[in-house]
Amino acid sequence: MGKGHQSLLGFDFKIFFVLSVALNVGLISKVLYQGEEGNQENKISMICLDTKGSRHGDAHISMRRTLAYTTTSNNVTEDSSGGDDIVIDLDHGNPAMYEEYWKHRGDEITVVIPGWQFISYFSDLKNLCWFLEPELAKQAIRLHNLVGNAVTQDRHIVVGTGSSQLYEAILYALTTADSPEPMSVVSATPYYSAYPLQTNYLKSGLHRWAGDAQNFSTNEPYIEVVTSPNNPDGSIRQAVANGDKGILVHDLAYYWPQYTPITHQADEDIMLFTISKSTGHAGSRIGWALIKDPEIAKKMTKFMEISTIGVSKESQIRAARILQAVSDDYDSISTVNDDDRFFDYSYSFMVKRWNELKAVVDKSEKFSLPKLPPDTCTFSGKTFEPLPAFAWLKCEEETVDDCASYLRSHKILTRAGKHFGASSKYVRISMLDTSYKFKILTERLSKLSTMKSREF
Amino acid sequence: MGKGHQSLLGFDFKIFFVLSVALNVGLISKVLYQGEEGNQENKISMICLDTKGSRHGDAHISMRRTLAYTTTSNNVTEDSSGGDDIVIDLDHGNPAMYEEYWKHRGDEITVVIPGWQFISYFSDLKNLCWFLEPELAKQAIRLHNLVGNAVTQDRHIVVGTGSSQLYEAILYALTTADSPEPMSVVSATPYYSAYPLQTNYLKSGLHRWAGDAQNFSTNEPYIEVVTSPNNPDGSIRQAVANGDKGILVHDLAYYWPQYTPITHQADEDIMLFTISKSTGHAGSRIGWALIKDPEIAKKMTKFMEISTIGVSKESQIRAARILQAVSDDYDSISTVNDDDRFFDYSYSFMVKRWNELKAVVDKSEKFSLPKLPPDTCTFSGKTFEPLPAFAWLKCEEETVDDCASYLRSHKILTRAGKHFGASSKYVRISMLDTSYKFKILTERLSKLSTMKSREF
Repeated sequence: MGKGHQSLLGFDFKIFFVLSVALNVGLISKVLYQGEEGNQENKISMICLDTKGSRHGDAHISMRRTLAYTTTSNNVTEDSSGGDDIVIDLDHGNPAMYEEYWKHRGDEITVVIPGWQFISYFSDLKNLCWFLEPELAKQAIRLHNLVGNAVTQDRHIVVGTGSSQLYEAILYALTTADSPEPMSVVSATPYYSAYPLQTNYLKSGLHRWAGDAQNFSTNEPYIEVVTSPNNPDGSIRQAVANGDKGILVHDLAYYWPQYTPITHQADEDIMLFTISKSTGHAGSRIGWALIKDPEIAKKMTKFMEISTIGVSKESQIRAARILQAVSDDYDSISTVNDDDRFFDYSYSFMVKRWNELKAVVDKSEKFSLPKLPPDTCTFSGKTFEPLPAFAWLKCEEETVDDCASYLRSHKILTRAGKHFGASSKYVRISMLDTSYKFKILTERLSKLSTMKSREF
Repeated sequence: MGKGHQSLLGFDFKIFFVLSVALNVGLISKVLYQGEEGNQENKISMICLDTKGSRHGDAHISMRRTLAYTTTSNNVTEDSSGGDDIVIDLDHGNPAMYEEYWKHRGDEITVVIPGWQFISYFSDLKNLCWFLEPELAKQAIRLHNLVGNAVTQDRHIVVGTGSSQLYEAILYALTTADSPEPMSVVSATPYYSAYPLQTNYLKSGLHRWAGDAQNFSTNEPYIEVVTSPNNPDGSIRQAVANGDKGILVHDLAYYWPQYTPITHQADEDIMLFTISKSTGHAGSRIGWALIKDPEIAKKMTKFMEISTIGVSKESQIRAARILQAVSDDYDSISTVNDDDRFFDYSYSFMVKRWNELKAVVDKSEKFSLPKLPPDTCTFSGKTFEPLPAFAWLKCEEETVDDCASYLRSHKILTRAGKHFGASSKYVRISMLDTSYKFKILTERLSKLSTMKSREF
């Protein structure tokens, strides 16, 4: 009979425990799985209480409370000791790293909502986007003007339940029901893995995913999504598709000074932003679009009306408060230390993380990272190489065709390159998760780099 | 030259003012227009500051601040004096009446959210619906158990951005991408006006609106939406379509004891609820589904993940606090006066409104209302006729074919019967708006009832 959880042939109680936990983890990972269907990569997943638990206490305490799972072949068993056996999930872009900053800032940045507020569907009937809280509009404009990352004059703001809803809203706004064929939607590889799914999951007759913009050529109208800085690889992008009837959607979720040098005020017709990545409040589900054409803004508003009758007022008010706090720190009358100002803090944080990751990867022959050119940031005055929210890591070894599987076998969960329309030699790794997970990541990559191939 | 705003031929400054205001109002009404496309009925709309303005002061003060518009032929001009010229918009189901109650309850029912909360996308990784705040689940179950309106045992809760998003999620969950034809979705007339639009607006290949369930017969799988109590007419409903492969979706948004006698614990496979109608917090955009089949709950969760990566945490926490407050009042240790408990208060409020409306309509030969049978409420022990959130008013005069146009000409904006798949002799009128608007409604219907036909 089996003497431990490595034995699968006996009827030891531990085996049932292992199978039971494996089943649970399988179910959870299925739920957790984000962005693509049919992905087999998350069959082993980590349950990390700090994504929720840390709300109620110190981040470091909650990290120690992390529940982890060790993997043994196809089975998974619980292990709360940490160490080599812990599975770290860096597949998602959960911006957990920001929690520490906002805790440090304390209770000053608090919203209080009495029971009688937000009864109405309506926020501002004078606004084209009638469910947009005026304070959110005001603070978004203020922050863009402070950072200098987007033109806000002559723009309509449309708020969405995260930038995901704005993406669907803009597809709806740019297409027409009377068109005989769905409009093609493209983006250059590697593109954000959610775009194909969001474009196609309802089998819409309005739009269809047409893949890589670089190999796309048409005489028909089409939509090109320009994500800059790009998710997953952090590159600065321009439209590339070949056609004269393209409509450009600029997803600028990462065009903030902790991730990339701000080089100019983006002045595009359609620009999408989200608080998930700008300040890290992913749970609030607040995004906003800056839209030049009022007819497009109206149709996006219509989409929000049909799909969700507007956007949470509580989240909007909270987002406004957060954005206000960020701007306030840069006011001349602010008493906050320069280093504690949001963009200064988060920039330094990203510099530190990228230095640590590069220190490991640069001396490794097994892994590589994209080389992104430095530029001078008009906001901070600093010259630096981009500090993307994700590491677009390549497995350089000839023997490793599937980088995600390779890393998974070493208990690092990442998102495989194929989901971004790219080679399986690449993976996307979140750089925004907890310090605890990031530390394990760098330690493990360092260890893998010094291992000989046959040890794989 | 024109001597006043009634003249349209001169070049008096007032005319430009009138035209300018008319243009603004036209644009606003276009934005405000909810639920159907191509509706011509809202070209004249009222801007009512109390939907927003009253947040910052006493409801009665804000009502006096109401900006109204008088209509002169096709033109509209501002009038803040109130009286006969005011246009009242009762098209939407904005539950403004609840604001007064929640103000009365005061600051005890307040949520406080510090800046570091809700960084994460995740709420509860152990739950199938991983973005559901456990406290909301707990309080929703507690309230259902208190009221006795739905079975919660062996159900999965899926939270949505209002029940609108849950409607789209359930359509997604019940259909398959590999089906050659979209699945038919039906509901008995008069059905909620948003269903056809929500089913069809993306030209989905998964589902299509097939109209009235009463005239529907098929051997293929289909979805029947059973809205009970029904929007717009308050009737209690059962499935009626003719087919053996129907999947039932029960929209129970109005199955609460202020609207209808609770006669049994609903025990359906798929049940939708929303805080917009249960407690009146429409601005929070929180709905929840009670789902028996875990596979359906998972696919709904998947829909939320793709479309909005979950649901606002702030709104969920706030909704939990509101639901908790409602339940707490009915605890044996509560010190709240019985009349001040939420369902007691709102039931009395609805009784009063319906008595006032019926007093007008019953003595009128021009209008009628559906006769709904009384029943005994297991929650309150009272026997009463349903008190629907909408009045489904019929214009009985032979000369009035289009009831909505007729009422619009008397400055009452309603939603026309045709949008519910019904005759234009009917309109839907919100019973949940401010006391101010409701008072004008009853006064005006009373006045119209005593007018002779030729005065129309």
